[in-house]
Amino acid sequence: MSLSKPPHYTVITGGVGGAKLVDGLYRLLPKNSLTAIVNTGDDFNHLGLAISPDIDTLLYTLSGKANQQLGWGREGESWNFMATLRSLGGPDWFNLGDGDLALHIMRSSLLAQGKSLSEVTQYFTNQWGLSLRILPMSDDKVATWIDTPEGALSFQSYFVERQCRPVAQSIRFEGSKSAKPAKGALEAIMESEAIFIAPSNPYLSVDPLLAIPEIKAALINTQAPIVAISPIVDGKAVKGPTAKLMGELDIPVSNDSIARHYGAFLNGLVIHQGDVPPNRNLLVSATDTMMHDAQDRQRVARCALDMTASLLK
Amino acid sequence: MSLSKPPHYTVITGGVGGAKLVDGLYRLLPKNSLTAIVNTGDDFNHLGLAISPDIDTLLYTLSGKANQQLGWGREGESWNFMATLRSLGGPDWFNLGDGDLALHIMRSSLLAQGKSLSEVTQYFTNQWGLSLRILPMSDDKVATWIDTPEGALSFQSYFVERQCRPVAQSIRFEGSKSAKPAKGALEAIMESEAIFIAPSNPYLSVDPLLAIPEIKAALINTQAPIVAISPIVDGKAVKGPTAKLMGELDIPVSNDSIARHYGAFLNGLVIHQGDVPPNRNLLVSATDTMMHDAQDRQRVARCALDMTASLLK
Repeated sequence: MSLSKPPHYTVITGGVGGAKLVDGLYRLLPKNSLTAIVNTGDDFNHLGLAISPDIDTLLYTLSGKANQQLGWGREGESWNFMATLRSLGGPDWFNLGDGDLALHIMRSSLLAQGKSLSEVTQYFTNQWGLSLRILPMSDDKVATWIDTPEGALSFQSYFVERQCRPVAQSIRFEGSKSAKPAKGALEAIMESEAIFIAPSNPYLSVDPLLAIPEIKAALINTQAPIVAISPIVDGKAVKGPTAKLMGELDIPVSNDSIARHYGAFLNGLVIHQGDVPPNRNLLVSATDTMMHDAQDRQRVARCALDMTASLLK
Repeated sequence: MSLSKPPHYTVITGGVGGAKLVDGLYRLLPKNSLTAIVNTGDDFNHLGLAISPDIDTLLYTLSGKANQQLGWGREGESWNFMATLRSLGGPDWFNLGDGDLALHIMRSSLLAQGKSLSEVTQYFTNQWGLSLRILPMSDDKVATWIDTPEGALSFQSYFVERQCRPVAQSIRFEGSKSAKPAKGALEAIMESEAIFIAPSNPYLSVDPLLAIPEIKAALINTQAPIVAISPIVDGKAVKGPTAKLMGELDIPVSNDSIARHYGAFLNGLVIHQGDVPPNRNLLVSATDTMMHDAQDRQRVARCALDMTASLLK
């Protein structure tokens, strides 16, 4: 924590749910005081294109372009590309919207020119006039694999093509042990006023970041208070595949499991109002953590921010 | 000319104008009796995508997907990709329609998997249910360059980005001397009942094919009659950049110039009605060569077909 600089905050996030929390923080905090470190374990190459789903979801969400109804992709998207691709017998299990393609094609082109994913992401962020820093967790390739009775599935095969139907036996992050954090990520963690763990899936979306040794170590070593927003809602009901996955991995679907999962560095947990708090010595705050609209996002972000203020040493 | 096989015809073509003649032939001839050998000197890599404008124009024209008004691209095309690309500061001098992108992305992906351009083109042709063979002139890279006072310009820089404004001093086809004709191209030329040279730009769109030594030799050596359709219309007025280019290259804008250009192998020329025929010993037939609709295309194709019948030895 540097006292000579204006306060800076860091949030660690995955895709859709996490992006809503980041959006809430982004609206509440002063300009250029937030760094989002984003999961890239879902990144993959499809039809020769470099696709970074969680980074794009964040870009779309913060710039007001996210499709609220679908929960992914762009508002007002058109689908002529997919229709023509189908007519050519191309793979149609992964939907690529016409506008969305611009990010993948531009990213692929810039990467081929030797730019890093960090540089490309920074460039996109600037082009869309967003005043925060979005960092991929690493410029090195880290790939999330899900071991199932049908064999190992890449994240997108499991999540999109198979709709999370196969039973997950274990989850691996190929390349994580040797991956270096993106430039600026460790400094952001070490020098932030406070750090937030977004309510993304802890096992699929946050663990890839924690599997990078230097990121995990920085979270343990930082002086900044760390507050997570629990993805558990209404006791056992959980959005997305988190509940199914926790069951398959023999983890009780509870805030206690979330607190234990982040136990090595967690100082506070925001839980859904009325839910059972974790059974351990940890600062807990409760609010309605369902983020339907901008107000919800800012309420949850405010709750987390207030917690970190009370945790500041 | 093989008498044991059903008659087969070959057409040599560039882009928009040529595709209309091919379409006319395609409608008149029995299924699977036509081979189109297509210019690929305009092919280029843009944003990491392998783009083959003349092949795609032919695919769109024959499958009824061509945009009649624009003269290029697809009917009912949408432009969300370009709008988003622009918002990201991407290059916008070359328009890529949303549906059009599917061909470029699928082609690039198949080429990256080790397929040849011939194989990809055959695959697209089959997927769209077209019963002819479309061959790129070569699976090897041949690139058209235009030397101008501003320096050498690649075809697309000259044609699209600079709208043919720079003065052309000379035209070169990089890679043509060592390029091998696509598999089947030489057999098509040697064994056809007749060969047609579409009314594409002789210097920009047909010359790339003639610059491949084995294609030129096959045209000279084949027993089949060869009939060209002149791109000259109404004496001096010519569509596209042909007239400007002929002026810059010190070539009179006349049917005589066209006949001389193809003189090494030409047996007949279809000219626009009322235009001055070439001043040489050559079978000439006249019709309205402006191809506005399907009837026009078939009339011009019929005129060329009838000429070859009279030339059959």
